[in-house]
Amino acid sequence: MKPNHLIEYYVGIDIGGTNTKIGIVDNHCNILIEHSIKTLSSQGAKQTFSRIWQTVQDMAKTQNIATDQLIGIGLGIPGLVVNQAIISRASNFSWGDNFNAKQLMEEISHKFVKVEKDVNNIALGELLFGSGQGFNNIIVISIGTGLSAGIIIDQKILSGVNGCAGEFGHIVVNENGLKCGCGLTGCLETYASATGILRETKRLILEKQTGILSKHFYHHLSDLEVHHIFDFYNKNDDIAIEVIEKFCKYLAYGLGILLNTIDPELVIFAGGVSKSADLIIQKVKTYLSRYALSASLANIQMKPGQLLDSAGIKGAASLIINDYRI
Amino acid sequence: MKPNHLIEYYVGIDIGGTNTKIGIVDNHCNILIEHSIKTLSSQGAKQTFSRIWQTVQDMAKTQNIATDQLIGIGLGIPGLVVNQAIISRASNFSWGDNFNAKQLMEEISHKFVKVEKDVNNIALGELLFGSGQGFNNIIVISIGTGLSAGIIIDQKILSGVNGCAGEFGHIVVNENGLKCGCGLTGCLETYASATGILRETKRLILEKQTGILSKHFYHHLSDLEVHHIFDFYNKNDDIAIEVIEKFCKYLAYGLGILLNTIDPELVIFAGGVSKSADLIIQKVKTYLSRYALSASLANIQMKPGQLLDSAGIKGAASLIINDYRI
Repeated sequence: MKPNHLIEYYVGIDIGGTNTKIGIVDNHCNILIEHSIKTLSSQGAKQTFSRIWQTVQDMAKTQNIATDQLIGIGLGIPGLVVNQAIISRASNFSWGDNFNAKQLMEEISHKFVKVEKDVNNIALGELLFGSGQGFNNIIVISIGTGLSAGIIIDQKILSGVNGCAGEFGHIVVNENGLKCGCGLTGCLETYASATGILRETKRLILEKQTGILSKHFYHHLSDLEVHHIFDFYNKNDDIAIEVIEKFCKYLAYGLGILLNTIDPELVIFAGGVSKSADLIIQKVKTYLSRYALSASLANIQMKPGQLLDSAGIKGAASLIINDYRI
Repeated sequence: MKPNHLIEYYVGIDIGGTNTKIGIVDNHCNILIEHSIKTLSSQGAKQTFSRIWQTVQDMAKTQNIATDQLIGIGLGIPGLVVNQAIISRASNFSWGDNFNAKQLMEEISHKFVKVEKDVNNIALGELLFGSGQGFNNIIVISIGTGLSAGIIIDQKILSGVNGCAGEFGHIVVNENGLKCGCGLTGCLETYASATGILRETKRLILEKQTGILSKHFYHHLSDLEVHHIFDFYNKNDDIAIEVIEKFCKYLAYGLGILLNTIDPELVIFAGGVSKSADLIIQKVKTYLSRYALSASLANIQMKPGQLLDSAGIKGAASLIINDYRI
C-alpha cells in the first residue's frame, strides 16, 4: 500500500447555471469530500474558476491531501464542448462563445484539466463506476430541464465535432409546436423533459379540473413538482396517467431513433427524473417497438443510473481517472 | 519498386439481391479488373460463395496475379452485419439469420475475410479513397431503394452492436403511413428514397394529370425512373418540383437528426440518387435549419460521393486495405 501522502486523488466539478458541485475522489471514484458553491457566472469565468479552485484547495486541506496529490480536474458544464477544452456555446453562462475553459482552469490551478458536456461525463461515469460497468457501447439518457444523451462507443465519449453529439432532445417532433431555447421549433425536449411534463400537467389541471392531482394543485400550481406527477400516476390519477404516457411515448420515439442510428448494448436513465426510472423503462418499452427496428431491440438492456446525485461530480472526475486506468 | 509477383492486391465484393460485383484492386484501390455475376442466392450461400471465389480466381489469372498476391476479401451485403462477420438479417437472401459469412468465405477461399453492411463499406471507401479523404468523422447517406447511412467516427466504421447503426431510414415520420419492409410503419425511407420518389410521382401523375411529366408518362408509368423526375424538375414541371421538394424536406429531417446526434464534419451523398447530389444538397440545406442545431450546422460540409458506381467494390476492398494502411 502506498503511504498516504503518495495516494492520488481526482477532482470532479459539475458547473451548473446556479450551483457548482465540487468533489475530491479516489481512483475508485469514491467521494472523500464534496461541496456546493454558487456559480455566480456573471462575475466572469476567471472569478468563478478562481473561487472553485480556492474551494478545492480548502477541501483538500480538510482531508490532509496535498495539492500535489490532485492528479487533475474534470469539469462538466451544461453546454457544447469541443475537444474537451472549448465551451463553444453554453446559454447559462455569459462567458462568450468558444471560451477555452481548459486553458483558464489550467492557468489558475496548474493542474491537468479536461472539460466535457455534463451528460457526457455522466455517461463515462456510469460506464466506469455505475450501471455501465462491463459494457463498451452505452447511451445515457438524462432527463431534467432538458433532454440529452451521452453516447459511449468503444468505451469512448462521442462528443461530436461541434460538441452536439447526443442532442436528441432537439429532434423536431412538431413543426407547429413550442419554440425551443435552442432556436428550433417543436423539439422533443419541449415534451419529453421535466419542464415538458410540468407544463403539460399544469395545462391539463387548468383545463380539466378533475382528479386528485387537480384537487391538490389547482390553487398551488407553482408547488407542483415532477415527483408529484409520478406519485399521482401510481394513485391512478387520470391527468397524471395521460401526462406520463405521453411523455414515455415521446421518449420512446427519440430513444427508438437513437437505437436505430447508434445501436448500443445498454441504455441508462439518469438525471432528475431517473428516480422514476423503473416506471419509465417499463412504459418506454411498450412504445419502443413502434419506433425501433426489432434487431436493435433484440438484446437491448435498460437500467436506471447508479451514480444518482453524485453523477455530476463522479462523471467529471471520471474524465481524468479514465486517462490513468490501466 | 516491388517485383510484379510481390505486389499485393485486394478483393472487393458487393453482393446484391440480384447481381454481385467483384473487383480486384491495388493498394490505392484502383480497380484492375471487375466483373458482375448473378448472385443466385437461392442456391444457397455455399454455392454462391464458391462461384464468387471461382470468379475471383479466374479474374486474377487474366491479370497474371497469383492467388498468393490476394491479401484478403472484403464483402459488402445489403443487410445487418455483426462483428464484421455474421449476417444477422438480410431480407434479400435466404441464408437464415445469424449466418457466419466470414467463416464460410474463409473456408472456401483460405483468405482473410471481412464482412460489412454495404453502406458502411461505401463510407469507409469514401473516407479512404473518395470525398472523405482528410476527414475523421463523416456520414455517408445512401439513397436508393432504401435510405441508410454509413457512419465513420475517428476513422472507424460504427456498425452498432446488432449491425443497426446508421439505419436512419427507419425513423418513423408518419405513424399512419405506409407499412415498411422492416416491420415498422411510416418510416422515413418510405418517403425519402428512390422507391418513395417514384411512388409519390406516379400517384401525383394519376391524380393531377397536368404538366409535361404527366404528359410523357401517364400512359407509360412503368417506364418512369428517378432520373426523369430530376430532369423534369429542371424543366420546372410542377409535379416534379412538388416531389423533389418533399423528398428533400424529409431527407433534411432525417439528416438533421443525424447531425444533432452524431455531429460529423462532413456528409457525403452516395447511392443511385447521388447523380443529382448537387441539387439535393442545395435543397436539403434550405430545409436543414429547421431540423438541425445551428451549432451542428455551423461548419458542416456536404459533398457528392466520388466512388460512384465503383463504390460497392472499392468500399468492400477498403475493409481489407484499411487493416494494412501505415
